[in-house]
Amino acid sequence: MTTFLSNKELQTRWERLQTKMSEIGADTCIIVSNVNLYYLSGRIFTGYFYLPAEGEPVLFVRKPLGWNNDNVVYIRKPEDISSWLQTKGISIPKHILLEADQLTYNDYVRLQAVFNPEKTSNATTLLRQVRSIKTDWEIGQFRISAKKHAEVYSRIKGCYSPGMSDAEFQAKIEYVMRSMGSIGIFRAFGNNMDIHMGSVLAGENAEVPAPFDFALGGEGIDSSLPIGSNGAIMKPRTSVMIDMVGNYTAYLSDMTRTFSIGKLPDIAYRAHQLSIDIQDAIAEKSKPGTSCAELYILSLQMAEKAGFSNYFMGTKQQAKFVGHGVGLEINELPVLTERSKELLVPGNVFALEPKFVLPSIGAVGIENTFLVTDSGVEKITLFEEQIIDLEENSPSDF
Amino acid sequence: MTTFLSNKELQTRWERLQTKMSEIGADTCIIVSNVNLYYLSGRIFTGYFYLPAEGEPVLFVRKPLGWNNDNVVYIRKPEDISSWLQTKGISIPKHILLEADQLTYNDYVRLQAVFNPEKTSNATTLLRQVRSIKTDWEIGQFRISAKKHAEVYSRIKGCYSPGMSDAEFQAKIEYVMRSMGSIGIFRAFGNNMDIHMGSVLAGENAEVPAPFDFALGGEGIDSSLPIGSNGAIMKPRTSVMIDMVGNYTAYLSDMTRTFSIGKLPDIAYRAHQLSIDIQDAIAEKSKPGTSCAELYILSLQMAEKAGFSNYFMGTKQQAKFVGHGVGLEINELPVLTERSKELLVPGNVFALEPKFVLPSIGAVGIENTFLVTDSGVEKITLFEEQIIDLEENSPSDF
Repeated sequence: MTTFLSNKELQTRWERLQTKMSEIGADTCIIVSNVNLYYLSGRIFTGYFYLPAEGEPVLFVRKPLGWNNDNVVYIRKPEDISSWLQTKGISIPKHILLEADQLTYNDYVRLQAVFNPEKTSNATTLLRQVRSIKTDWEIGQFRISAKKHAEVYSRIKGCYSPGMSDAEFQAKIEYVMRSMGSIGIFRAFGNNMDIHMGSVLAGENAEVPAPFDFALGGEGIDSSLPIGSNGAIMKPRTSVMIDMVGNYTAYLSDMTRTFSIGKLPDIAYRAHQLSIDIQDAIAEKSKPGTSCAELYILSLQMAEKAGFSNYFMGTKQQAKFVGHGVGLEINELPVLTERSKELLVPGNVFALEPKFVLPSIGAVGIENTFLVTDSGVEKITLFEEQIIDLEENSPSDF
Repeated sequence: MTTFLSNKELQTRWERLQTKMSEIGADTCIIVSNVNLYYLSGRIFTGYFYLPAEGEPVLFVRKPLGWNNDNVVYIRKPEDISSWLQTKGISIPKHILLEADQLTYNDYVRLQAVFNPEKTSNATTLLRQVRSIKTDWEIGQFRISAKKHAEVYSRIKGCYSPGMSDAEFQAKIEYVMRSMGSIGIFRAFGNNMDIHMGSVLAGENAEVPAPFDFALGGEGIDSSLPIGSNGAIMKPRTSVMIDMVGNYTAYLSDMTRTFSIGKLPDIAYRAHQLSIDIQDAIAEKSKPGTSCAELYILSLQMAEKAGFSNYFMGTKQQAKFVGHGVGLEINELPVLTERSKELLVPGNVFALEPKFVLPSIGAVGIENTFLVTDSGVEKITLFEEQIIDLEENSPSDF
């Protein structure tokens, strides 16, 4: 059902962006990507969101038809924007922000040709910074997602039956997700980041390197989407890592839990506890001003001290981060990685995912989503963190 | 499960592209998008597929790790490509094909800076042309998809129960799809074409205009994805149009069927029959050399003659095409639209979707996928085409 954002909420976002625009002397920002259109207008449309350095935006819309609003101007092509500006006696912008990491080359060049600006700067970078600090309304959306996320995870045991494949298990979890209001698609930053609703990673498939910048890999069920479950039958004494997205609002909560088919070898529980310990140590240290790079280094040190370095964030291919911002996209700022220059700021929402991949057992560990408050962090994904045995008292609710 | 394409199949594709390259004098094609990487290498990776005008390609790979092959060179950044070429004594290309409608502006500009070519041309356009003519292997993949597509559609009635919402109905159909091997995501050309597994469009929701270039619209369950089902309870005497994708291989079959909650008003059956008649007339006329624009105009004329123009391809917003190529993406070439210059060619695979939206009833009509043969067309999506009453002898298989 369509609910549009309040003007006050949008106003806050425009002002934040306008502040950044003033800092770099940009007079106009033109937005085309769905994710930024939604952030700045509360809607998805085919067209252009046009924000001057001061004052209200104009929505230049091609589709959908039928919107009646003072700020909406229907156009057929980007050239109509400059004609409209001229009609209104508004001067053509000179320093324009365009989404250089989202627009295609041809779309970008065409907009440049329309305005022939003296300078263009990267709207993608600026928007990612603005979006990394969530408003109260956005935080409320995360809480709704996280609550449903936990409800869905509480039904995962009921999706399991012995001898099933990881792909069939995933299909049942997806059905529970969709019945609980999952929006379906989830958005990732970067053109080549393909995934379907999340990842179910069972047994030795957890070792298979994937091409994407997600934490772990997996073979996938088809070579056109090499990530996650591969259709193999889940085996006793192996783990199943469930990292399905919390897309019950447009704001994505990120939560991973580890399940097992019967009892796992002892090393799995030790590695899993280490994951929880790393999470707790990072959460303890996190507050406004904390360096994201230091948090990552802390995770490396703890993994190394415990002798688990070779299994941390993969084996054959190891991810070089332990956490990442979440929001409308699953990979926002800040990033908890070695080269990060970012310091935590109140309103950041990030996922923390110390994970280990154990050869012949599978992936273990957890992931939770944290909100940076004025004094520390608050965990917003609340669900049992120990390894859950799927074969123990498994009630079928399917 | 991973199956890689035979070298012979890939060789055919490289040669087709190399022929196009020679025609425009390009000496190298560099591919980055997932869909074109998969088309040309049978794999998805983070990196660059580098095809010279003559000879074999080189895969410059960042991820996944672990590929051992003569044609694979591991790199960290695009600049490493030119270093490698220099090491091998290969001259730096002068006229490069880059994916101008797929690469982001920044990625494109970076590749230009690496090679500093005298000229760049648009690989997107060329690849879309090459991909529009399917090989025998690809046609076989469509047949596999289409067969499973029909099997899933035969189970749609079993997903229905009276009083359910369109979104719950869709969730059940998606579960059947995924259990039958649906890959999950389906790819569309264009950055802003968001959709989740297809569209279920019930009753008056069919009139709601959406921002995307799909045939019909719908409100969606959330304003961040305004397309398809909106969570409303499905009502007696309304239609439900099911247009879920056939992604059981990487090659997408496209098939729409109309269902009803009980008996519909007579006009619905007349409009539905008109849709079948338009399909049959277009199929009859289609053969190598037929103008795609003429096929579209034929559909307009038939809709007008029957007095259904105002309902054709929407009401408040009407799509301006009646068919489109399908393949690895749902919107390939050729397009059956007024301004199309394309003529049908053997090996084209296109979806034909004459649809009508009837106020207060919903959408009716069908869609099928056709292969252009040497002498005409062959329908490859085979399933009952009449309106199917969901309330008639509905066996629950859920």
